[in-house]
Amino acid sequence: MATVPSVSYSMTVRLEVPAGGSSVSQLTTVVESSGGHVTGLDVTASGHERLRIDVTVAATSTAHADEIVRRLSGIEGVTLGKVSDRTFLMHLGGKIEMTSKHPIRNRDDLSMIYTPGVARVCTQIAANPEDARRLTIKRNSVAVVTDGSAVLGLGNIGPRAALPVMEGKAALFKRFAGIDAWPLCLDTQDTDAIVEIVKAIAPGFAGINLEDISAPRCFEIEARLREALDIPVFHDDQHGTAIVVLAALHNALRVVGKAMEDVRVVMSGAGAAGTAILKLLLAAGVEHAVVADIHGVVHTGRSDLVGARPDSTLRWIADHTNPEGVTGTLKQAVTGADVFIGVSAPDVLTAEGVASMAEGAIVFALANPDPEIDPAVARQTAAVVATGRSDFPNQINNVLVFPGVFRGLLDAHSRTVNDAMMLAAARALADVVLEDELNANYIVPSVFNEKVAGAVAGAVREAAERTG
Amino acid sequence: MATVPSVSYSMTVRLEVPAGGSSVSQLTTVVESSGGHVTGLDVTASGHERLRIDVTVAATSTAHADEIVRRLSGIEGVTLGKVSDRTFLMHLGGKIEMTSKHPIRNRDDLSMIYTPGVARVCTQIAANPEDARRLTIKRNSVAVVTDGSAVLGLGNIGPRAALPVMEGKAALFKRFAGIDAWPLCLDTQDTDAIVEIVKAIAPGFAGINLEDISAPRCFEIEARLREALDIPVFHDDQHGTAIVVLAALHNALRVVGKAMEDVRVVMSGAGAAGTAILKLLLAAGVEHAVVADIHGVVHTGRSDLVGARPDSTLRWIADHTNPEGVTGTLKQAVTGADVFIGVSAPDVLTAEGVASMAEGAIVFALANPDPEIDPAVARQTAAVVATGRSDFPNQINNVLVFPGVFRGLLDAHSRTVNDAMMLAAARALADVVLEDELNANYIVPSVFNEKVAGAVAGAVREAAERTG
Repeated sequence: MATVPSVSYSMTVRLEVPAGGSSVSQLTTVVESSGGHVTGLDVTASGHERLRIDVTVAATSTAHADEIVRRLSGIEGVTLGKVSDRTFLMHLGGKIEMTSKHPIRNRDDLSMIYTPGVARVCTQIAANPEDARRLTIKRNSVAVVTDGSAVLGLGNIGPRAALPVMEGKAALFKRFAGIDAWPLCLDTQDTDAIVEIVKAIAPGFAGINLEDISAPRCFEIEARLREALDIPVFHDDQHGTAIVVLAALHNALRVVGKAMEDVRVVMSGAGAAGTAILKLLLAAGVEHAVVADIHGVVHTGRSDLVGARPDSTLRWIADHTNPEGVTGTLKQAVTGADVFIGVSAPDVLTAEGVASMAEGAIVFALANPDPEIDPAVARQTAAVVATGRSDFPNQINNVLVFPGVFRGLLDAHSRTVNDAMMLAAARALADVVLEDELNANYIVPSVFNEKVAGAVAGAVREAAERTG
Repeated sequence: MATVPSVSYSMTVRLEVPAGGSSVSQLTTVVESSGGHVTGLDVTASGHERLRIDVTVAATSTAHADEIVRRLSGIEGVTLGKVSDRTFLMHLGGKIEMTSKHPIRNRDDLSMIYTPGVARVCTQIAANPEDARRLTIKRNSVAVVTDGSAVLGLGNIGPRAALPVMEGKAALFKRFAGIDAWPLCLDTQDTDAIVEIVKAIAPGFAGINLEDISAPRCFEIEARLREALDIPVFHDDQHGTAIVVLAALHNALRVVGKAMEDVRVVMSGAGAAGTAILKLLLAAGVEHAVVADIHGVVHTGRSDLVGARPDSTLRWIADHTNPEGVTGTLKQAVTGADVFIGVSAPDVLTAEGVASMAEGAIVFALANPDPEIDPAVARQTAAVVATGRSDFPNQINNVLVFPGVFRGLLDAHSRTVNDAMMLAAARALADVVLEDELNANYIVPSVFNEKVAGAVAGAVREAAERTG
């Protein structure tokens, strides 16, 4: 699949080149002929004989970046210096920090922020625990909790390696919703332990954002925490994804002029995200859904499900989908379908598969980083195509959802998060795209659209006050 | 004991008074005659008939503040409006926040701070876990952990009510040492559970500051965490107090011209702080120490210690102190003593007790908020007196210690904290007071002395690199 050079693979290469001759002009030529982009070129030192030049280059991958560096250093007369990776530079020392809201300049400040003044505030909260939401950080704080078991597309890389993602998530919470989130990367993958730990740290937070915890443990952890805690628990990989997919589907259906109740939806993938998407689609009125996993279409008669525990996820899916009793492969299931939603693996959907779908087909190929089908290929016959990628229209991105959802939950002092709130969030996100903006290449707004978080937050708050 | 009006009991009282007559001048008179101080008086609205005046008043206690408000509203023609408490106003919404170090302005920023760029940083840390100290917040983060069981002088008020103290602590970490601390207030007081929770959250932090956990659980929790974790664990109520007491004692002994090895030290209190102070004093060379608790002097023959478990704290104290086999009451023990250190209860030491001490007596009366003896009374015969109070010279304040200690530990990437580091911290803090500054009323520097944190951090870092 074609990829374009990206700033996320951006590096600054320090080179020494002869002051005369064509070395300098060769630098740009070499980068561009290698498929990279020169995004900056600074002469940082100059002499009669030699120039020191910092060349900033965007590449498509780490291997590509290495190849460009190798070719640059191969230019005659060029000496390679330090190579700085812009992404790594941004991570030095971490991406977030704790700051005090008040200056501590003198003894008076100290006596109000800390002892003895703070004692009266403590006493007040001890007498009236609900005041913790007024007089402490609890009002605006969310814990971003992971065990590092299913981080991005990287898998089980553990709590330390997961930290940069959780810091990024915290930064996004602040940027898009003004929320103070702090990462907690847990050094255990035991379900019982995680439940106990999150219960114990809950007093200081107004919400729990579970992140990158692998299925099926994530289902049980979330269910038990929702039962135990008086603050909302939201597994973004499940519910954030489900909300943004539903919002995108609302608008895609508007583009092709079909109704939620009528369409045949085929899903590929029955993991955490897939199951959550399915449940929200059913709550939103989808009546004809079929799910396929690596073993084919899920149905009650499938050999691995005949003896399945009634509380297993696959059994639940079999019991709640596929009313027509479709069997066989994903390829067979997509024939004639109106909607394909993939949260599975690269390249499981073929061009022929898309061509076999009904008129006005909708394809959401959300596997990351490589979708179920190249979106450019799918677009040849499908009416609407969306992916998780930022280099193609219609990016299905959780950043559209989780900041606003938590802003609404926190503003409502909500003790839970339910389907009504999630359906309202999806509808509000869809409605940010105005009727005269809507088209096949614009079914979801940009993450930098300033209306998004406020619209989602308002809808969630209203639903929380109505139902919570 | 006399107390002075303090900004930590400061309030702003909104009053409406007649525009003519003497009401305005009466406001100040009434506050001052009630023992309060007027620290601000603003006319916030004015008409022909009435004035609206905001009077800011410092009182000595909540009851005193209420009394002043009552007397103000009793002035003829005065109508009472809203009363705002400055300390409570500072706590609205909490005292700390999370901030992003980098702006997120566009898709390029997003792709470096979050996906897809962040994946390469995660992969790097997965391959080389030590890089978490370079590429994440772990480098500069400390968890402030409490179970709310022994908060300030307030006792077991629980995790929610403890939060304002922990936020204040985090703010002090940043103000004095540039450290990013985040409060974790645990909804459990079970020793095993606390140990498991702190072990689990450790990957995201470079140090653990235990805070306000009651004895004897705090000893076991700390010991087990130190054994289990590869980052330093420091219980500030114990070790922070011990370090600042030792620093103060260094300088008090310089004032009276005595040596650590020669003095007879009598301690009142065998709780968390008392035990930690004792251990550090012994490590610093004290040879003649006697400890008294509520049952009198601790000695190996005391009835409640004859059958005591060998690992109990009191038994340890009996085995390691009191070589002369002193018995009886605290009052008997202080006769002829050189140093009294109280971390116990108000008024356990009398003026006669102090008078019975040796020439050049040193009295540290550290019970909070009310000391073992009124420092003004002790000072009548003692050569050097210190308390935990901010309204008397020689305030023994942990803020002098914990920021610098953690700064040093973090800078050294220390995996532990040991006696050598604590002794070095105490010595460095004592030495901030220069020879020509030293006197009986200046044995510890001000918490706003800019040299303190750096001196302590440098000493700890050096000791860590030497011993850790």
